[in-house]
Amino acid sequence: MAASASGSESASGSSVEIVHGRPVYFDCDTGIDDSMALLLLVSSDVDVVGIGTVSGNIDADQAARNTLDLLALAQQPDIPVAIGARAFLTTQYAGGVPHIHGRNGVGDIDLPRGGEPVEGDAADLLISLAYEYPGELEIIAVGPMTNLAIALQRDAELASLIRRVTIMGGAAMVPGNLSAAAEANIGHDPEAAQAVFHAPWPLTMVGLDVTLGHTIALEEQWRLTSSDSLCAQAIGRMLELYFDFHVEIFGERCAALHDPLAVAIATGEAIATLAPVVPATVDTTDGPDRGRTVCDLRGRFRDYPERPDAHCTVVLEVAKPFGPTLITRLLALP
Amino acid sequence: MAASASGSESASGSSVEIVHGRPVYFDCDTGIDDSMALLLLVSSDVDVVGIGTVSGNIDADQAARNTLDLLALAQQPDIPVAIGARAFLTTQYAGGVPHIHGRNGVGDIDLPRGGEPVEGDAADLLISLAYEYPGELEIIAVGPMTNLAIALQRDAELASLIRRVTIMGGAAMVPGNLSAAAEANIGHDPEAAQAVFHAPWPLTMVGLDVTLGHTIALEEQWRLTSSDSLCAQAIGRMLELYFDFHVEIFGERCAALHDPLAVAIATGEAIATLAPVVPATVDTTDGPDRGRTVCDLRGRFRDYPERPDAHCTVVLEVAKPFGPTLITRLLALP
Repeated sequence: MAASASGSESASGSSVEIVHGRPVYFDCDTGIDDSMALLLLVSSDVDVVGIGTVSGNIDADQAARNTLDLLALAQQPDIPVAIGARAFLTTQYAGGVPHIHGRNGVGDIDLPRGGEPVEGDAADLLISLAYEYPGELEIIAVGPMTNLAIALQRDAELASLIRRVTIMGGAAMVPGNLSAAAEANIGHDPEAAQAVFHAPWPLTMVGLDVTLGHTIALEEQWRLTSSDSLCAQAIGRMLELYFDFHVEIFGERCAALHDPLAVAIATGEAIATLAPVVPATVDTTDGPDRGRTVCDLRGRFRDYPERPDAHCTVVLEVAKPFGPTLITRLLALP
Repeated sequence: MAASASGSESASGSSVEIVHGRPVYFDCDTGIDDSMALLLLVSSDVDVVGIGTVSGNIDADQAARNTLDLLALAQQPDIPVAIGARAFLTTQYAGGVPHIHGRNGVGDIDLPRGGEPVEGDAADLLISLAYEYPGELEIIAVGPMTNLAIALQRDAELASLIRRVTIMGGAAMVPGNLSAAAEANIGHDPEAAQAVFHAPWPLTMVGLDVTLGHTIALEEQWRLTSSDSLCAQAIGRMLELYFDFHVEIFGERCAALHDPLAVAIATGEAIATLAPVVPATVDTTDGPDRGRTVCDLRGRFRDYPERPDAHCTVVLEVAKPFGPTLITRLLALP
């Protein structure tokens, strides 16, 4: 992993030279697109210093199992993985989505067994990492935001210690996928998402506005499955089921790169070409818009003038197709 | 007005030949763009059989005054105008928007005084017209939907008597204008709009998705103001103030043709090239999405497959610029 100058002016005020990459805490509900995102992340030049899991695409325990198995496959078994929230802030977890991610979250393929999760839950891991890397730690969250909200509740200083939060979640100017209005990561736990949107940290939202525009195609899946890389093979195999589901959305076999795109935006491997900073909140009512991300994009005809009350960067356009980058990276893994 | 075959198979089962144009009830909160819409409508080949006013851009009484004055200017003084709801279903009317429509609703210009409103309120006028033209009457509503909701409450048969309802209102995939989520006509009286969206009549929504894409430019305003037509002159003069306001939105002097576009869609003078029929409702919570039109547009990657639970035609694209048509029509008026 390449050393990075980012975070050198950390909140700790330390003048010791930083020799690690940008420290990242990754929060996920692994999940097929989470699996791609995880492998993209651990092969990037950031330093993944901890991973927490949350119920969403699959329950938090199985998400940790999948994460640990994939890390072993990627020969990165030393990254600590903590199991996080099994239920949402105000509701129980109703179970996974076997028609999208399979009964085990990874398209019902068997992965070689990896290591074991660490003691303590994901929120505690996040908090301890925030103090270990004050002012430097970045969060990338690609599942429901329950762990982040719990961590914010437990430690009032947390937000001030975090450099940036990037989430896959929300839908600003497009329909949702959990409902007509709500994207799934937000819609599963709107109260948690609202806490994340309202916390005083820089937030970047990578939502359905852009993730549905970045897909992986059939030929690319074949390249993964037939490659020498075990990681690529695993992804190629789990994509079978994910492609089945996407026929409902796109009318053809392909898959949206939701979580990988959020990782790529966070690491700088995908470039947002339109990403206004606007006021944003989450609808936590019990109405038809529950779980909707309400982004104030009324400045759209004037290049989104700066607003003092704005705190959320909403990614609305990404420079170029991101699928090829992802494929190249997956193929280069063990 | 040209005779039309539409409505010839009316619910009355009458075999008498229809000699009038398509009968239309127009509901408005006149308003600068309402003024343009009104003049467009009375110069079209439909038969405007009644007009109701509602508080919105201006209070219902002044809206009637403006409507009657414009009808006199257009030499159509015989169309009955009824004053409608002064307050919304669950809230009081908080006053007009002088920075948008002027203190008098028509950009603070003085119009020559026209006739007087009829007895009875707008909802009663609508109901009586529905029975006079059963199965034929069309509604075009370009203000808050309070009168329509009151009429639905008063007469359980109303919806079955109406051929089609076309509204200017809502924002399906774009931000609102009253709030980040709500368009003003819906947002002022969400409960009324919800009643209109849920009633069993065919509904066409012409919202900000398309109306903000159709504008009138400075040169066009000059043509109106300098013309021989008193109607065109009046519109040209009131557009001064409306242009001022639109600088906030577009960064230049121009104005969106919200209400005229809805009229043109209803009369067939503007053609919708993308208008899926989808389930739709209105957010009546007290959350950040209050007044939002929730249209289920999740079928967007598959040309919006037919759904048995769909009842709302949401106009998302219109064939060509509509401004020139409007200008031509206004210039041809008295």
